Amino acid sequence: MQQQISVITLGVADLPRSRRFYADGFGWAPVFENAEIVFYQMNGFVLGTWLAKALEADMRRTGLAPQGAFALAHNVATRGEVQPTLDRLSSFGGSVLRAADEPPHGGFRGYIADPDEHAWEIAWNPAWSISPAGLVTFGL
Amino acid sequence: MQQQISVITLGVADLPRSRRFYADGFGWAPVFENAEIVFYQMNGFVLGTWLAKALEADMRRTGLAPQGAFALAHNVATRGEVQPTLDRLSSFGGSVLRAADEPPHGGFRGYIADPDEHAWEIAWNPAWSISPAGLVTFGL
Repeated sequence: MQQQISVITLGVADLPRSRRFYADGFGWAPVFENAEIVFYQMNGFVLGTWLAKALEADMRRTGLAPQGAFALAHNVATRGEVQPTLDRLSSFGGSVLRAADEPPHGGFRGYIADPDEHAWEIAWNPAWSISPAGLVTFGL
Repeated sequence: MQQQISVITLGVADLPRSRRFYADGFGWAPVFENAEIVFYQMNGFVLGTWLAKALEADMRRTGLAPQGAFALAHNVATRGEVQPTLDRLSSFGGSVLRAADEPPHGGFRGYIADPDEHAWEIAWNPAWSISPAGLVTFGL
């Protein structure tokens, strides 16, 4: 099977609140939106933010905790961008989980929860390349 | 900020069990692995499966439910591949949440949970293009 993920869909309780975090905080442009979902075209896949009740009904699961055992990461180009990015997202509805510091494997990172408790790592990892189009390649 | 997600990290309880689902079930090749994490180079970003306790410690959250309010999707090229893909993943440790059927917006999809309860949609969506390299583009 193709080594490919097409969509990450995050369940949200309040779409305008979520949109403010992603569209205004991260500064990402929606590619489509209506009253229950916003899609963002990302680097080779699509991010969706969908009303959690609709997502639950679609996948036939109910009563999900908002925060699951997963994290998304947005890598930045320099160490100096990590904490200011956390600060900016915090001012758009995020809640800092961990202020930026150095992980054991090197680099620099912190964590912030979006308004629906989904965790984001903001990281500088000089071993991983990011193309001008945003394509991220694993490296050691 | 660049419209880019670098990593999706899923918390897992049992790394060999998770590896069986992703490496043997999906057939995806790890790009790196050790005793606590497996990385897969995906279409423009990286998928990580990391022991949930280590992920929790890293992001300074504890007691997370395994299943959160989110879903990942793997799109396939034809309608006929959807249910067999669900069946295959089921035989590698997945639990079907919803057998394949037609959503209101068209296409064909079902849902399956990985061994750690993370939800995957397996979908055929003819409006979205997938390049030979696996880059997925939103369409209507």
